[in-house]
Amino acid sequence: MKALSPADQLFLWLEKRQQPMHVGGLQLFSFPEGAGPKYVTELAELLRTYSEPEYPFNQRLTKRLGSYYWKEDHHFDLEHHFRHEALPKPGRIRELLTHISAEHSNLMDRQRPLWECHLIEGVRGRRFALYNKAHHSLIDGMSAIRMATRALSNDPNAKDLPPWWAMQPKKREATSPTATDFISSLTQLSNSAGKQLSTIPTVIREVYKSVQQANENPDTVSIFQAPQCILNAPITGSRRFAAQSYSMDRIKAIGKAMRATMNDVVLAICGSALRNYLINQHALPDQPLIAMVPVSLRKDDSEGGNQIAMILANLGTHIADPSDRLSVIKASVKDAKKRMSQMTPEEALNYTALTMAPTGLNLLTGLAPGLQAFNVVISNVPGPKKACYWNGAKLEGMYPVSIPLDGIALNITLLSYEDQLEFGLTACRRTLPSMQRLLDYLENGIKELEVAADL
Amino acid sequence: MKALSPADQLFLWLEKRQQPMHVGGLQLFSFPEGAGPKYVTELAELLRTYSEPEYPFNQRLTKRLGSYYWKEDHHFDLEHHFRHEALPKPGRIRELLTHISAEHSNLMDRQRPLWECHLIEGVRGRRFALYNKAHHSLIDGMSAIRMATRALSNDPNAKDLPPWWAMQPKKREATSPTATDFISSLTQLSNSAGKQLSTIPTVIREVYKSVQQANENPDTVSIFQAPQCILNAPITGSRRFAAQSYSMDRIKAIGKAMRATMNDVVLAICGSALRNYLINQHALPDQPLIAMVPVSLRKDDSEGGNQIAMILANLGTHIADPSDRLSVIKASVKDAKKRMSQMTPEEALNYTALTMAPTGLNLLTGLAPGLQAFNVVISNVPGPKKACYWNGAKLEGMYPVSIPLDGIALNITLLSYEDQLEFGLTACRRTLPSMQRLLDYLENGIKELEVAADL
Repeated sequence: MKALSPADQLFLWLEKRQQPMHVGGLQLFSFPEGAGPKYVTELAELLRTYSEPEYPFNQRLTKRLGSYYWKEDHHFDLEHHFRHEALPKPGRIRELLTHISAEHSNLMDRQRPLWECHLIEGVRGRRFALYNKAHHSLIDGMSAIRMATRALSNDPNAKDLPPWWAMQPKKREATSPTATDFISSLTQLSNSAGKQLSTIPTVIREVYKSVQQANENPDTVSIFQAPQCILNAPITGSRRFAAQSYSMDRIKAIGKAMRATMNDVVLAICGSALRNYLINQHALPDQPLIAMVPVSLRKDDSEGGNQIAMILANLGTHIADPSDRLSVIKASVKDAKKRMSQMTPEEALNYTALTMAPTGLNLLTGLAPGLQAFNVVISNVPGPKKACYWNGAKLEGMYPVSIPLDGIALNITLLSYEDQLEFGLTACRRTLPSMQRLLDYLENGIKELEVAADL
Repeated sequence: MKALSPADQLFLWLEKRQQPMHVGGLQLFSFPEGAGPKYVTELAELLRTYSEPEYPFNQRLTKRLGSYYWKEDHHFDLEHHFRHEALPKPGRIRELLTHISAEHSNLMDRQRPLWECHLIEGVRGRRFALYNKAHHSLIDGMSAIRMATRALSNDPNAKDLPPWWAMQPKKREATSPTATDFISSLTQLSNSAGKQLSTIPTVIREVYKSVQQANENPDTVSIFQAPQCILNAPITGSRRFAAQSYSMDRIKAIGKAMRATMNDVVLAICGSALRNYLINQHALPDQPLIAMVPVSLRKDDSEGGNQIAMILANLGTHIADPSDRLSVIKASVKDAKKRMSQMTPEEALNYTALTMAPTGLNLLTGLAPGLQAFNVVISNVPGPKKACYWNGAKLEGMYPVSIPLDGIALNITLLSYEDQLEFGLTACRRTLPSMQRLLDYLENGIKELEVAADL
């Protein structure tokens, strides 16, 4: 029996009926050459033979004196965790997204190991999908992606690759949750508060400076200045998921032409899409939306010092012109990175924690609904660079399915894979009607920057 | 805005993550003649046009001063409630039951009207299925069955029949929940306790008599004497559902030959199946299992006085011989009915309430785990006598999907339809492994009685 870390306990405490705390991933595969009509059925039969999961996928929760522990599930029942499902006809991506939206809404059974793997047949065009789901207390989003990738091969001829639950995952770095994962970063609130009090004066000074600066320059983002927005309502228990792949080359070309990083361009595209979506909903705030974004703080091109922190970025949603919007975003990110890079790693962590404090407070207590530090989470996660195969089936796309929270009803997570950027949008179904339109607006956002850059 | 009755509030209070309080029904249809390959897709499109639900299916919960009220959902979103799904190949009944097991495990979104309708394609043999789901606070099991039936027609040529959520249901008799519905009867605890105190002396006398009698004759069932059994463990959040149709003529023939009512024969078959299942699990108690059963108390063949109450029946699971087992069951039911028939309706209700008191107490407070009044619920519900059609598609079968509770991990509900008895077995997945075997054991139970009756 092993106690959960305070951070992992937090994910269980934060979980409510309308706020499940599991992360997911949708993988879309194409049939290998020569696959017959029974291909997926046979694959399901093969997967059912992996009925002995590896650690930690054999661990279930148990509670003692108010704290949670992991212990082995001696009645492990693979049929509960591995599910063979099908899309109704015509089996388009639309039906797939509807299916994932419904499945991602469902809480998991806490009396069992907190993961599920859904093998989905009936995807048009000789394809099938995997929807993997695991509770955040078991594995964080980044580790989940790494693990799902490790179960694949770059060799199309590699056979007998076991599914991810039958592979022993690498040790998780429990002491430093990946800051690219917003939810993990939340746990800094509980983890770092007591430890690094010595850095607090620096942090307070930076907070003060950022508030001052914001007063002088309205495009600089201070803490707690995100506008009220429909994206920041309490959430309900049903989800809406949308996903699409965009060409990385297009994003890179824009970045090169407009002297911006890929991350800046991504934020500009998201800002454009959110602006258009909110205009369509008659709900665009006068003030720009603020995104919580994980960024690299690497100061030069050296390999070391690849420190990552969460920053607040101005998305320029109040600006109609795409070039002007990108400029505001660039300046805002540069400023936030500069502030972060002047801090020690401990200070940066504390700064992040303080930045997110109202969000964390709201999530845990609902006490400070007026203090909105940011409106949306946009995470850019590195994925596999080379084409991946699973027993001969090519991985065509891989989309993160993340966690909306009370007051943060939309999560945008993107993953790089080969020459694609894979966007996964996860939202509260009630708070974001017609969310599928965001996919078109993202495409628009790319196009308008291409026009602006004369591409 | 309309306040929920105390009984309906109870279903919300009783609901826990691992104890959802929704009822369901599985309807299996065969394609009408001449239906093409797009039949179900087109049916789904047709159903999506009924986007304005009738009362109460347009009502959502709202909470005020700790009490629940119904109010209209002004953002009704049919896509959330109506779901078009598919079975994976080969689309046997096995895949259908797996699908229903998973869906019935999922809690509903309390921010929306508490119902769902799942249209399921890909059932082998030119069939499709509907899985209807509604929270018990919205509609009780009996009303749900009546309503699902009302949406059908006896005329195979009737067209343009709207789905059940687009039909105004008949007024529910809120003051007298149908006693055939065990869960509804539970609410007698809260409803009748204060009202009919004058009948308490009679009830106490009957309780005393039944305890005395039980001491003299071990086959008489007293209150609180059900044995400890694996069926009476705390439940988990995942479900197992099994369903099968059995010929009513066979049951009737056995009843005629052995001078037993159809209900007695059903109990004997269930007793046989449970005995074999528990032997297989190395868990057969020495004492007979006790079933909570709704029975008719009609004293003669006149139309009036069709009073229904819940009785405790000895299932004779300790007896190997099928004839002897049936005799014990007959005597036990006759005795319980006689006791009930000597009471006034009010007394019978209070007696029922008292009988179920420990169960109700356990469910609400977990205070009296040692007092087990019964081991299993077996409900026999009257359904349509004539063949039903839905826009030309024949209803082949109709199976209740009910509610397991903490300490009552298995619910057996059966429904009569045409010349069939439709068994629906709903259980906690963890507490009842290999539950599908119960279906074979039920068939065995019929066969051994046929042999005993020389049929």
